[in-house]
Amino acid sequence: VARIGEFVLDLRQLESAGLLSTTRIPESVFSAPSLNRFMSLGPLVWRAVSDRLAEIQEAGAPDGSVHDLRAATDVTLTPVMPFEVADYCDFYASEDHASNIGKILRPGTDPLPGAWRHIPLGYHGRAGTVFASGTPVVRPLGVIDTPQGLIHAPTRRLDVEVELGYVVGVGSKPGRPVAVDEALDHLFGVVLLNDWSARDIQAFEYQPLGPFLGKSFATSVSLWVVPMWMLESYLTDGPEQGDEVPGHLNQPQPRAYDVSLELSLNGTPISRPQARNLHWSPSQLLAHLTSNGASLRTGDLLATGTISGPEPQDRGSLMEIAWGGRDPIDVGNGRRTWLEDGDTVSIRGWCGSHHDLMLGEVEGTVTQ
Amino acid sequence: VARIGEFVLDLRQLESAGLLSTTRIPESVFSAPSLNRFMSLGPLVWRAVSDRLAEIQEAGAPDGSVHDLRAATDVTLTPVMPFEVADYCDFYASEDHASNIGKILRPGTDPLPGAWRHIPLGYHGRAGTVFASGTPVVRPLGVIDTPQGLIHAPTRRLDVEVELGYVVGVGSKPGRPVAVDEALDHLFGVVLLNDWSARDIQAFEYQPLGPFLGKSFATSVSLWVVPMWMLESYLTDGPEQGDEVPGHLNQPQPRAYDVSLELSLNGTPISRPQARNLHWSPSQLLAHLTSNGASLRTGDLLATGTISGPEPQDRGSLMEIAWGGRDPIDVGNGRRTWLEDGDTVSIRGWCGSHHDLMLGEVEGTVTQ
Repeated sequence: VARIGEFVLDLRQLESAGLLSTTRIPESVFSAPSLNRFMSLGPLVWRAVSDRLAEIQEAGAPDGSVHDLRAATDVTLTPVMPFEVADYCDFYASEDHASNIGKILRPGTDPLPGAWRHIPLGYHGRAGTVFASGTPVVRPLGVIDTPQGLIHAPTRRLDVEVELGYVVGVGSKPGRPVAVDEALDHLFGVVLLNDWSARDIQAFEYQPLGPFLGKSFATSVSLWVVPMWMLESYLTDGPEQGDEVPGHLNQPQPRAYDVSLELSLNGTPISRPQARNLHWSPSQLLAHLTSNGASLRTGDLLATGTISGPEPQDRGSLMEIAWGGRDPIDVGNGRRTWLEDGDTVSIRGWCGSHHDLMLGEVEGTVTQ
Repeated sequence: VARIGEFVLDLRQLESAGLLSTTRIPESVFSAPSLNRFMSLGPLVWRAVSDRLAEIQEAGAPDGSVHDLRAATDVTLTPVMPFEVADYCDFYASEDHASNIGKILRPGTDPLPGAWRHIPLGYHGRAGTVFASGTPVVRPLGVIDTPQGLIHAPTRRLDVEVELGYVVGVGSKPGRPVAVDEALDHLFGVVLLNDWSARDIQAFEYQPLGPFLGKSFATSVSLWVVPMWMLESYLTDGPEQGDEVPGHLNQPQPRAYDVSLELSLNGTPISRPQARNLHWSPSQLLAHLTSNGASLRTGDLLATGTISGPEPQDRGSLMEIAWGGRDPIDVGNGRRTWLEDGDTVSIRGWCGSHHDLMLGEVEGTVTQ
């Protein structure tokens, strides 16, 4: 299904009714079980479909193929992944997040890793455990270092990370880096993403190979992929980058997207991260990822890392909001430093002061 | 194709001739383009096919479906992946490798990371850049820290890592750890693996998120997946593990596989790593990977990390063999500390003193 403003269009119905047959749109693109085939076709086809949908909506579409969200409760999205994830990697693109984590874990030292201003830091995550919004998250077991010694137990420090995930449509060839100014020929769209994290499991395992089991149990994404071109009107200036940035990663302003996010715990909003605070743009992340010749595949997912900002209300993880357990927060039904079983976390996202473009929601409940 | 001793059997031909139709083998398993469907069917089917192939070979098979490797040059394997990789992760399971790297990079400190004896350390790699043996490897570009400052240039420290890769056949459910003694119900087989590494790119980027672009440009695997059950006769005692190992990862001896490997550079053998020196067994790696509830998929690839041993001839990377650039080695056509363009690296593997079970070869040539 596709969504335009308050309307939801059933692409499979429109396609079988012949309404998507134009010279630029191949046949049977939307009868596939995922968006991957469509995503692989590139910007000309993406735009052609988008333009055609706008025409259809204006001209009036056959009964049952368009649903008005304002009126209807007839659109139910089941928790099914909107695309098949190929490789998933996760970055560390927010300066305030990287710096807050440094201050909490390594007080008194320079909070930013040495390479941080020169290149986007990132790592590969587990593609097989990226789940659709609504999928319950089972509290992970792990080996944890406690004052009483090592134990093997359920995590006591279950956290969330508010992120955006950029979805690759068009793949690339091995040995051929994609330049910053070519990145949008490859990037199809964006999802909301919650990178669930077990801070105690992560703390014990992460040296020197980085996050592994502290993250690999679950990553949740929203059910909609919002095409990049719909975000174009929300381009804005991102943080300044100094001459630390090497030439091949340079990108002029405006390079940030003005997406507002809201993190809620059991229905109580607890923070308002802003994607415009991200230091590295999606084009820079994609250019860096391929700069060593690594190829892209349709369905690759590049996440930003936790989105935080300079103010306390901008913080995108409990680790930062409750400052490593020091400052409990009030939610409707109690106080929290970390997540408890039964807690429901949701992230919503939108662009524009009147919520002009909705990015949907990613939600999950912690179970035992 | 399947290989038994010196014979190669064409499974697709045998299947369409009806020779694989037994009660335990589903239809059309081998008409698929990869082994994944067969691998997903589990130990009973794997054994049934294996038994049936032995029968066919003894009884005599139709013309053209069996090739004698001793006589024939009629079996040519094209560089096509024998299976589709789902998630790829890489461990750090050799104590001598981890310890050598510690001594080279952090001299004077404890060379083993703190958690190393308690849990297998690992990270996720890039599944989309796992290539079949024979695929050329393009020298990666990256940001490198030099005495003259940061540069963006082709790596000057291109290395190899001799590894085994264990291939998952049967998947598992999210939130359900697989126990050590259940791991072989999930693991289908083993490949030889070369984890190409750019040490200078890796050195600049790896704190705190681990290896990323220093590894993600290419990983090569052999064209054969050797089923785990064929390795059973080569089980042997691995290194002793103390009571640092938590209960859920305990596994009695014999838990190591006695696989001999040989690393050659431009045709000159330069080391002989032994898989029996690996500290952690494949069952322990798989149990650890799923211990946080992360699910498995058919095609997941778990690599051991570089296989080194106590003696210099056991070392599985140039970093260790030439000790970080200090001790150049002689190869037929010159001296090397790192790989040069045009260099061909191959890894062969076998079990038994008379090469009773061959694991094939993984090979690649460095190009500009």
